Amino acid sequence: MPLLERLLMGPGPSNVYPEVMAAAVEPVLGHLDPIFLGVLDETMARLREVFATTNPLTFPISGTGSAGMEAALVNSISPGQVVVVAINGLFGMRMAEVASRHGAEVIAVEFPWGKPVNPEALVSAHPSPAIIAVVHAETSTGVVNDLTWLGANKGDALLLVDSVTSLAGMPLLIDDWGIDLSYSGTQKCLGVPPGLSPFTASPRALERFVDRPSSWYLDLSLVAAYVSGDATGTRSYHHTAPSTQVVGLHAGLGAILEEGLEAGFARHEETGRALQAGLEDMGLDLLVDAPHRLAQLTTVMIPDGVDDLTTRTSLRERYSIEIGGGVGPLAGKVWRIGCMGHSARMANVLTLLAALEETIAR
Amino acid sequence: MPLLERLLMGPGPSNVYPEVMAAAVEPVLGHLDPIFLGVLDETMARLREVFATTNPLTFPISGTGSAGMEAALVNSISPGQVVVVAINGLFGMRMAEVASRHGAEVIAVEFPWGKPVNPEALVSAHPSPAIIAVVHAETSTGVVNDLTWLGANKGDALLLVDSVTSLAGMPLLIDDWGIDLSYSGTQKCLGVPPGLSPFTASPRALERFVDRPSSWYLDLSLVAAYVSGDATGTRSYHHTAPSTQVVGLHAGLGAILEEGLEAGFARHEETGRALQAGLEDMGLDLLVDAPHRLAQLTTVMIPDGVDDLTTRTSLRERYSIEIGGGVGPLAGKVWRIGCMGHSARMANVLTLLAALEETIAR
Repeated sequence: MPLLERLLMGPGPSNVYPEVMAAAVEPVLGHLDPIFLGVLDETMARLREVFATTNPLTFPISGTGSAGMEAALVNSISPGQVVVVAINGLFGMRMAEVASRHGAEVIAVEFPWGKPVNPEALVSAHPSPAIIAVVHAETSTGVVNDLTWLGANKGDALLLVDSVTSLAGMPLLIDDWGIDLSYSGTQKCLGVPPGLSPFTASPRALERFVDRPSSWYLDLSLVAAYVSGDATGTRSYHHTAPSTQVVGLHAGLGAILEEGLEAGFARHEETGRALQAGLEDMGLDLLVDAPHRLAQLTTVMIPDGVDDLTTRTSLRERYSIEIGGGVGPLAGKVWRIGCMGHSARMANVLTLLAALEETIAR
Repeated sequence: MPLLERLLMGPGPSNVYPEVMAAAVEPVLGHLDPIFLGVLDETMARLREVFATTNPLTFPISGTGSAGMEAALVNSISPGQVVVVAINGLFGMRMAEVASRHGAEVIAVEFPWGKPVNPEALVSAHPSPAIIAVVHAETSTGVVNDLTWLGANKGDALLLVDSVTSLAGMPLLIDDWGIDLSYSGTQKCLGVPPGLSPFTASPRALERFVDRPSSWYLDLSLVAAYVSGDATGTRSYHHTAPSTQVVGLHAGLGAILEEGLEAGFARHEETGRALQAGLEDMGLDLLVDAPHRLAQLTTVMIPDGVDDLTTRTSLRERYSIEIGGGVGPLAGKVWRIGCMGHSARMANVLTLLAALEETIAR
């Protein structure tokens, strides 16, 4: 049975670029095939462009964004080390939970959901943390957390940034902003199906990697021996790389770089702001104050008298449009509407606005 | 640039079923879309058929086979518990390493590479282990380890079985054989690209799952709340499921069940034995004695005077055929030739034999 085509305007996955679909039917290659290794090398080079970094260890982890989060933490934390985590949404909470499981002494610095992180409060939370961890674009609230001040004032700590919803959707400068570790996801602004976590680690972070972390699958020293090879360029098998997904990511990154990173940022900005203006024109309230509001992911308050689930079900069944519900304290109170990747098109914004207006009015 | 079509006759990935390729261009669905959840439910039901189990927790883990191995161990081991691991190849070694990282007291029971495990030696290695772990089909050597006696004599231990290279390629009866935990990979006899790890856990294993394992990504109690839902059937978001890969696995399992499991086993048996007879007819020696020799993965000794890498490179460049080299103590000494999934066809066997004979003679 063929599956339905959806207009994906939730918090991810977004619709994928046509180039990714075309790559999906390429023949499967082995993980040690020189042709595949060439594609992997090019994928890593493209990821460096998108992350704006020269970090040699920049590659797609074989798991979703949460695997990237775990990889960043399990390789960097020795038991008892202090990790300062900024929490202003679900994914900050998740970082704190994962860090705690890997033995960190977690100092959680909390801010209200829907408000930005105060970077000064993070830096003053502890005199010498091993890691300061923050989410760039909080998918649960639609808030952007400013990173530039933090990077300049992190001291000796490693700065760990969740870029799941920001990468390729807005400026993110790993090197210039002093970010040491970052993980993303393929299914947001990269316009590629879920399954891989683009990852980057600075040489400074690498030097501090722990020996023999508890996770073997996510042991980045072992993974690096495959993705980067040794001094002679020889690659050692670690686990079987998901070659077809890497080929898909390679194609998606190709589409992004062909459009141009800045042009892509502008498209996410234009479509997201048009969506927000349209929602406000309909009389709806947005959760996040304008200065801290993401373009690519909008949280809109569900108006009184309108049922959350009925509305989302109707959008899906009548128009084949997916939007997201709220999570945590925002469950039932907001919708999350994404304009990410190939979904971030003006025609999609108009379609969504018209469908939502019609559905609420029914 | 279009990629080359390869005849994949190495230790995996194998060529994928045409049904999987057709599914690769289905529209992307969200991980909470009811249509996708229906596909996931059907995928889980199909996996239960292929695993020959009624275990409710039977689903694809969002990572490759090694992620499945880590999931089985990290959820089952409390620090200091005894895990008896049978080692007669690379993947037994890997299980011991992963178990050790998660705090187990590992009792490694070693056998020569290329020889089968003696199950009685495993059972007598410790009076009351928490887990006995064994690889069903050792991908590094081509040996089958017999599981039936072990299942009947495991005592109170959980029996953990690596079925990466056996699932859908030869009989594997999770329930009848008393297997408590098993993980596989999609890229071997299932004929699906690499990226997911089919997994099953018995109710007995579930009861012993540890609270809050060190891995959050692979915490099966949390993952189960998504894949199986709660008592009311409500599913909670954990991580974003790689929906397109699940759709591909669903299609591959459909092809396998349409052919019939027994017919598929017979095809793997027929093609593998034909390959082995052909290799022996060429005067080549096989590593493994006939009674313990897998059909789907054959290790053949590289004849004197023939260069390993030159031969494999020539096969790839001249005929676009991939076979595998040896690993560990067998590196440079054997080739590993797979007949798995959609690659397991008589025409492919003849092609490979003719190409190998021609290449060796050159």
